[in-house]
Amino acid sequence: MVGGGSDAFIGAVHRRAALMENEIELVCGCFSVNPEISISSGRSYYVPDNRIYTTWEEMFEKEAALPAEERMDFVTIVTPNRFHFGPAMRALELGFNVVIDKPMTLSLEEALKLRDKVRETGLTLALTHVYSGYPAVKEAKKRIARGDIGRVRRVFVEYSQGWLTQRIELKGGNNAVWRNDPKQAGKGGCVGDIGTHAWHLAEYVTGGRVTELCAELQHVAEGRPVDDDACAFLHFDKGFTGLLQATQVATGEENNIRLRVYGEKGGLEWRQMEPNTLYMKWIDRPAEEVRMGNGYGFLTDFTKHNTRVPGGHPEGFIESFANIYRNFAYTVRARSAGETPSEEWLDFPTVEDGVRGMQFIETMVAAGYDRDQKWYKWVEE
Amino acid sequence: MVGGGSDAFIGAVHRRAALMENEIELVCGCFSVNPEISISSGRSYYVPDNRIYTTWEEMFEKEAALPAEERMDFVTIVTPNRFHFGPAMRALELGFNVVIDKPMTLSLEEALKLRDKVRETGLTLALTHVYSGYPAVKEAKKRIARGDIGRVRRVFVEYSQGWLTQRIELKGGNNAVWRNDPKQAGKGGCVGDIGTHAWHLAEYVTGGRVTELCAELQHVAEGRPVDDDACAFLHFDKGFTGLLQATQVATGEENNIRLRVYGEKGGLEWRQMEPNTLYMKWIDRPAEEVRMGNGYGFLTDFTKHNTRVPGGHPEGFIESFANIYRNFAYTVRARSAGETPSEEWLDFPTVEDGVRGMQFIETMVAAGYDRDQKWYKWVEE
Amino acid sequence: MVGGGSDAFIGAVHRRAALMENEIELVCGCFSVNPEISISSGRSYYVPDNRIYTTWEEMFEKEAALPAEERMDFVTIVTPNRFHFGPAMRALELGFNVVIDKPMTLSLEEALKLRDKVRETGLTLALTHVYSGYPAVKEAKKRIARGDIGRVRRVFVEYSQGWLTQRIELKGGNNAVWRNDPKQAGKGGCVGDIGTHAWHLAEYVTGGRVTELCAELQHVAEGRPVDDDACAFLHFDKGFTGLLQATQVATGEENNIRLRVYGEKGGLEWRQMEPNTLYMKWIDRPAEEVRMGNGYGFLTDFTKHNTRVPGGHPEGFIESFANIYRNFAYTVRARSAGETPSEEWLDFPTVEDGVRGMQFIETMVAAGYDRDQKWYKWVEE
Amino acid sequence: MVGGGSDAFIGAVHRRAALMENEIELVCGCFSVNPEISISSGRSYYVPDNRIYTTWEEMFEKEAALPAEERMDFVTIVTPNRFHFGPAMRALELGFNVVIDKPMTLSLEEALKLRDKVRETGLTLALTHVYSGYPAVKEAKKRIARGDIGRVRRVFVEYSQGWLTQRIELKGGNNAVWRNDPKQAGKGGCVGDIGTHAWHLAEYVTGGRVTELCAELQHVAEGRPVDDDACAFLHFDKGFTGLLQATQVATGEENNIRLRVYGEKGGLEWRQMEPNTLYMKWIDRPAEEVRMGNGYGFLTDFTKHNTRVPGGHPEGFIESFANIYRNFAYTVRARSAGETPSEEWLDFPTVEDGVRGMQFIETMVAAGYDRDQKWYKWVEE
Repeated sequence: MVGGGSDAFIGAVHRRAALMENEIELVCGCFSVNPEISISSGRSYYVPDNRIYTTWEEMFEKEAALPAEERMDFVTIVTPNRFHFGPAMRALELGFNVVIDKPMTLSLEEALKLRDKVRETGLTLALTHVYSGYPAVKEAKKRIARGDIGRVRRVFVEYSQGWLTQRIELKGGNNAVWRNDPKQAGKGGCVGDIGTHAWHLAEYVTGGRVTELCAELQHVAEGRPVDDDACAFLHFDKGFTGLLQATQVATGEENNIRLRVYGEKGGLEWRQMEPNTLYMKWIDRPAEEVRMGNGYGFLTDFTKHNTRVPGGHPEGFIESFANIYRNFAYTVRARSAGETPSEEWLDFPTVEDGVRGMQFIETMVAAGYDRDQKWYKWVEE
Repeated sequence: MVGGGSDAFIGAVHRRAALMENEIELVCGCFSVNPEISISSGRSYYVPDNRIYTTWEEMFEKEAALPAEERMDFVTIVTPNRFHFGPAMRALELGFNVVIDKPMTLSLEEALKLRDKVRETGLTLALTHVYSGYPAVKEAKKRIARGDIGRVRRVFVEYSQGWLTQRIELKGGNNAVWRNDPKQAGKGGCVGDIGTHAWHLAEYVTGGRVTELCAELQHVAEGRPVDDDACAFLHFDKGFTGLLQATQVATGEENNIRLRVYGEKGGLEWRQMEPNTLYMKWIDRPAEEVRMGNGYGFLTDFTKHNTRVPGGHPEGFIESFANIYRNFAYTVRARSAGETPSEEWLDFPTVEDGVRGMQFIETMVAAGYDRDQKWYKWVEE
Repeated sequence: MVGGGSDAFIGAVHRRAALMENEIELVCGCFSVNPEISISSGRSYYVPDNRIYTTWEEMFEKEAALPAEERMDFVTIVTPNRFHFGPAMRALELGFNVVIDKPMTLSLEEALKLRDKVRETGLTLALTHVYSGYPAVKEAKKRIARGDIGRVRRVFVEYSQGWLTQRIELKGGNNAVWRNDPKQAGKGGCVGDIGTHAWHLAEYVTGGRVTELCAELQHVAEGRPVDDDACAFLHFDKGFTGLLQATQVATGEENNIRLRVYGEKGGLEWRQMEPNTLYMKWIDRPAEEVRMGNGYGFLTDFTKHNTRVPGGHPEGFIESFANIYRNFAYTVRARSAGETPSEEWLDFPTVEDGVRGMQFIETMVAAGYDRDQKWYKWVEE
Repeated sequence: MVGGGSDAFIGAVHRRAALMENEIELVCGCFSVNPEISISSGRSYYVPDNRIYTTWEEMFEKEAALPAEERMDFVTIVTPNRFHFGPAMRALELGFNVVIDKPMTLSLEEALKLRDKVRETGLTLALTHVYSGYPAVKEAKKRIARGDIGRVRRVFVEYSQGWLTQRIELKGGNNAVWRNDPKQAGKGGCVGDIGTHAWHLAEYVTGGRVTELCAELQHVAEGRPVDDDACAFLHFDKGFTGLLQATQVATGEENNIRLRVYGEKGGLEWRQMEPNTLYMKWIDRPAEEVRMGNGYGFLTDFTKHNTRVPGGHPEGFIESFANIYRNFAYTVRARSAGETPSEEWLDFPTVEDGVRGMQFIETMVAAGYDRDQKWYKWVEE
């Protein structure tokens, strides 16, 4: 693991998600750029001292030098964006599979290099667009694919947070600091941090790909150097259109993701803050509350594979992360054994999604501040 | 009453709303362009035969000829859009006050003429943007005005319906027919029918006025001659921005209006389908469910004036209409008596809102189909 | 109208409900025991001075003396419980139909006398158990009757309020005063005021009748002379059982009624504070949100008869009252014309329900304080 | 681990909960009474062959014979009720700490023996009343304890499931079989399986203890040998009262737990199916939605200790289990080191709760079928 020291947030989520299924062990790590934090964190995670490293470079070299059955099987990179590309590229070069948080890199250019390296090595890279890990999102994807709501016409996706309402990054000591520093986070603020999640959900669930967009990016909190609010009209390759809304200045909102897709015959809605229900809406009959884990024969096998407990026992954010880790682990293991992973196992975001994510950010940034040009084609590689 | 025959929908709502408060009697009407329906409808409403008319022209002439204490005090016009301007203008010319459904006219040009006539005569015209009649919307307006959520930054308003998912207008015999005929409805389809409601809510609640917008209008159902889906980025004069979303092809949605306003200190949310709650959201403390009718001292007098029953006893759509009618009636009576109506009484949409509504439609239609120009200034009179 | 002065709560609801449908006019009244309030109230309701009375006895005599086409058709009694029996009995004796608020009388003995008088005269008496007037409750009734959820097994009904958490009756000047005075309200406090509503809903919806019960009544607020909390296990004649819970000391609750019925094949749930949805639950498929007013062909005609607006436009408490008034009016008119009212028109609570309601109160009061006897048979007339 | 083979439900939950925090490893187990399932399950959990056992007796002997630093630190028992007492008692005799699922034993007699053994050995026993592990339940407990809602007056707790609506136990091959067999489950059906959870929540949150109760137990599904529906009026030692409702025949319900506590100044409500919100209700101000994980300073440290992710990222059932495991692990470790565990660490149900749980079942069973005696004192040890 690179990052995830005891002072970090998302690292602990990754750790729990990885461990929960008993398919993954934490064997080594460089948990912080601060050597003391790395060591104390590693010890608190029960990692032996000789495998707690103080730089990721050292970690990769030493792990690569270990016998195959001892060295780590993959590395998880949970650092701020600017420390994504370097470790990921080096890990791939040394033959390690990679799990990496989104957005994948600091720039599209870096993303393309990573993609080429993955293609070249045949290794596996998973990108933790965690919201696509929820069972109800998977159920939505499968239902759309099999035509339950008819031809898709409109996608509405919103992601509202309020934690950046004030410029708390100026106080320091929190997750807002690097996210609002373009050198560490990249060109996008809100659009990179949560806009990419919203975009990914829309493409994941519908199976469509954005081709052009009209956007407005705003710096709502005075003086903030990156956007904290972004919205866009989206056109997709399959002929339908969408509206994307992401904001981090919606005062009082927590992590309010809401996805709706409307087709010719029906519609569906999912809300992340109560993630175990998928609402199906119809022209000619009452709306249905499709509940994850429920024993009735109304859920796809694809969904059941990603569900742990019976209906009424809520699953949450960590379980959603764990779905990505488990599917990634099964895929890595299958490929290591020369086998072909199943469709269920391959169901996690990859380096290709990472490239599209960076294209999304760059297209949004180009379009979002331009008062003159209305529509922007998707930035192509 | 002009329109509102037994075959119509909104006329019955107007009637109930007007009668509920025992301040208004139904004394005469031309209830349909079809004389038979007008007569049978009038009789079923207990209107005496001699005051059931078969044309509105006849009605206005004959009523105007009655002694002052007998003739109608005002006329309600609840016909399709193209029959708004004519009756309204004639009523004003003859000295009658007017209640009219939205959008006010078929074109901005007509709207401006009506406005001039109202200004000239000093008569009162109420426009039934019913959603601004809900107590919780009024509470939101007052709270924003007194600074509860700080300076406003973002307004999100959406209005989703699904009843036009299919081209039911082709079947005939329903409310969709005239709404999808530009000759009867005007240039806007969805943008006129429900987009104007969404826009009005945003301006009513925040007290801001849209100055420019970037829009996309779509004809989602194949072959439909008017838009059935419209969305826009909005810029307001007070420095904040907004996102408006209106659609009539959101399959399975009924009348899903959701308004959110976020300020520097807090946010608020209101949903029409459960209209008796206003959600207040905060940076530094739990969200609150502010309930209409509740006895705690947390509601403004402005709101209480528009509430009929104690908390927990739901009020709905008809009561919201009745608030407009009651306030209109109080205002007309006060003005007739040479008195100045109170702020509470004057709280209903007027001819000025009607003009702005037509400007909204015309700006949206201009902006919504133009692939090249991003921002459109508000169409000025 | 007897009662309903400008200082009362429920009278205004009755008035609006009666007027909304344009089937009923307010022609006379004795609006208060205080003559001044009666007169000023009557004038504010536009009742002519000669038909504003200062005692109900006077009103009934004078109205009875008017020509048939002039005198009132029925009287609405909206006074505290102890003033129910007298006016109702006298009205029936003089040939007037009656609408009366619940509980019908101060004692079972009075109730039986009223029932005998109704049977003797053939007049119509409606009891405003308003919650059975909601469309979704009617839909529930019809669905159960036609077997949608299979044989009924369990009924859970709760009615929670918090307004009597403190002994506000001691402050005076509010609706709590007479409700907590056994001389004015009768033996039951909470059990009479809201427990009867809960009981009535259970019988109305299931079609079953309580045969015996085990109850606990409590005076939670110290020193209160009547119960403010009541719960009971119920046994019904049709073989199923139920649980009833009513409280007025559930701090912070408004008017939280929740009804659930479970059968062998399905279950249903309704909540008064969002009254336009009926939730249907199933063993083998997703739960459904059955929405009132929705155009899909999934609602019974019985329900549609009691619905005013399309789905998504909320109806509320006053509309529910209006359903009782309208059905009563249709029934009275049909009977006056020698016709047989339809099943839809006859759908309002009658004097028979009023008798059962008093039996409920008396059985609960007997059972609720007895530490020794577990089960009480329904008090028979 | 005893039980939890690949064919079981709750074992997998325990495993994930135990592993998630990286404080516990799965080192050995007897995962099934079927040796083949035990071995294949153990292997799939990556337990070495030499520590996969085919009887729990063998496991305990062999583990006890291992050097202290190698042998298991505690055992988790996740078998049907009748296999609780034997392994638990033997584990304690051999010096192992114990985690055990509820209800603790088959009878009160067994429970008392276990309690005596725990007291005698000073070992730690945790009982997985998982619902008390939710952060919002802990917040409720602390708020009540510090007087936020004033003196408690009424507790309403309900637990509704529908999965036993039909007699699926007759089909075999599912979790319903042993639960509906008194020899395997004990005297209580519903009352033992879920009634105990409801009772425990009520005592945990309020800090009160039931002293007497009036109950009705029913066998709603025809022919079922144990109760599938139970309700009770409860009297607590601290002077307040409650209503408990548990059912497994509420067709279509999943795992619907709802807890409400009302005091003199406020009330609170929690619902397990959306567990991350605690609703606070007040006489004199709007209800609040207190959200777990939210950064505002409105949550107790006690709650924060049991929360993993920021507000808006839902936690669920497995995290709640993990709270019990983590607190248990911290306590065991502290005690092993001769230290005193903190209040937070000691916050898990113990053998004393297990005894009370069996008392609850036995009291309910005695009271629930007796038509003559109304109130039953709590069965004392």
